[in-house]
Amino acid sequence: MIAFGGNALLRAGEKGTFAQQLSNVETTCSQLLPLIREGYDIVIGHGNGPQVGNVLLQHEAGKQVFGLEAMPMDFCGAETQGSIAYLIETALEKVLKKAGLDRKVVSLVTRVEVGEDDPGFRNPTKPVGPYYPQAPSDGAVYREDPRGRGWRKVVASPRPIAINNIELVERLAREGYIVVTVGGGGIPVVRDVDGCRGVEAVIDKDLASALAAIRMKADEFFILTDVPKVFVNFHTPDEKAIDTMTVAEAERYLADGQFAEGSMAPKVRAGILFVKNGGDQCVITEAGQLGNPACGTRIIP
Amino acid sequence: MIAFGGNALLRAGEKGTFAQQLSNVETTCSQLLPLIREGYDIVIGHGNGPQVGNVLLQHEAGKQVFGLEAMPMDFCGAETQGSIAYLIETALEKVLKKAGLDRKVVSLVTRVEVGEDDPGFRNPTKPVGPYYPQAPSDGAVYREDPRGRGWRKVVASPRPIAINNIELVERLAREGYIVVTVGGGGIPVVRDVDGCRGVEAVIDKDLASALAAIRMKADEFFILTDVPKVFVNFHTPDEKAIDTMTVAEAERYLADGQFAEGSMAPKVRAGILFVKNGGDQCVITEAGQLGNPACGTRIIP
Repeated sequence: MIAFGGNALLRAGEKGTFAQQLSNVETTCSQLLPLIREGYDIVIGHGNGPQVGNVLLQHEAGKQVFGLEAMPMDFCGAETQGSIAYLIETALEKVLKKAGLDRKVVSLVTRVEVGEDDPGFRNPTKPVGPYYPQAPSDGAVYREDPRGRGWRKVVASPRPIAINNIELVERLAREGYIVVTVGGGGIPVVRDVDGCRGVEAVIDKDLASALAAIRMKADEFFILTDVPKVFVNFHTPDEKAIDTMTVAEAERYLADGQFAEGSMAPKVRAGILFVKNGGDQCVITEAGQLGNPACGTRIIP
Repeated sequence: MIAFGGNALLRAGEKGTFAQQLSNVETTCSQLLPLIREGYDIVIGHGNGPQVGNVLLQHEAGKQVFGLEAMPMDFCGAETQGSIAYLIETALEKVLKKAGLDRKVVSLVTRVEVGEDDPGFRNPTKPVGPYYPQAPSDGAVYREDPRGRGWRKVVASPRPIAINNIELVERLAREGYIVVTVGGGGIPVVRDVDGCRGVEAVIDKDLASALAAIRMKADEFFILTDVPKVFVNFHTPDEKAIDTMTVAEAERYLADGQFAEGSMAPKVRAGILFVKNGGDQCVITEAGQLGNPACGTRIIP
């Protein structure tokens, strides 16, 4: 299982043209080649932060300019699953072809179940979408931006508990398909008497990918980020890159506040979750390091 | 193989709220129950006309209001594959659960190949996206609206020639999965030396579904529309509903201009294509008629 961020496609500071996004994802996909060449069965989960941010703004703008309905976040997340999967399939196919590798790519639209009683819903904290001069009275929760840019919707970031069609994802991956799933952490749904219904929330893509890896009994879980290794005492004179840490060590570092929330902490938590549930190891690293056997930081039992 | 229009979800005159779209698609899905109960293996193709129209407007508005990049049509079509698949999965699962049927639903993001030399690209005719006061000079083709609303991009409607992962779609359907694919006619791509690249075009969803049906060696192809049968001499005193027509008869009616372009003609052409390539029959009908053995108009060899 490989998880990469939405910023592997749309980078901060870039305008995010189609050509740029495709070129970025091609770079990331070509960095997966060492794993593909080693014959790994591969499932890709990806983030959608910058992309769903744009979609939410486009829905708001469409309402202002053309009077269109602004759709809920689950719908917007589903949109990004389609568009990002399209970019990944196109780029990955090109990379595979150039490398002379015969692997097929398939992308599933994926709903991920969260608990209606998840504590996140009682205290939503994840800001999403446009800034408003006043909080709209539409039933959602809005918070005022501390930097004075206005009011912004906040949604829950609930824990994923089940992934739709994961048994099929596993089967296809074991047959050799490279499968794209849980895009943006998955479309968040809760079970109800009728089946399920979408909720406005953001599932952490590393946690969703960890759960996918656990359910598929994946051997390894790679979390791709923009630093080569995990550091302790980051940005201090005692800064130290970690090659390997056990789950117990990782938990101690987390408790010590060694890893930044919203950045490295959730990745380490996702790695711990995977290894505690039967995974051999979780590797947190830069995509560009994947060919290097000593790459990244390994979380082991 | 079942094809239904984008207006089975988002109906003319409706505001198109999330709840409305979900309710519409639930109605359509519940009308598929007679086929599901009969034990058919089912693949669903769907249109995206109203939905991709909205996405194109949202991209234009996002550019105007927030300075975001407006993405090309293939990207926008991919977005609608994600969102519409999400609505169909949610609604269909609910309908299946209520009916006590144990069938799984899976949705694939699907690229469809068209020929770079397709004559449609030399003379694009399909108007898409917003109206502009003047034709933007971005390399695309724009036509002035005859009703004076401004200039609008026109794109090709090329013939589909290959469907990505169709062998997998067939296999999953034969295992009992209800598979959603070729959304909006598929994301249009052309082959190039590197693999494939997206093009701004609209593939007719009935033709794409017909090709899918042919490649899967489907027995029957249902094209769902908003009239119970195909008519000849439509809206004249000699108007007559057709129960069954052979391919030869259908071709003669087409040549006589009996079927409206942009409406019934492309459906009849898709049906002919399917039956000429080995299909048992194509049924053109209203979704609500599916339980009725005499429903619709059958095109037979």
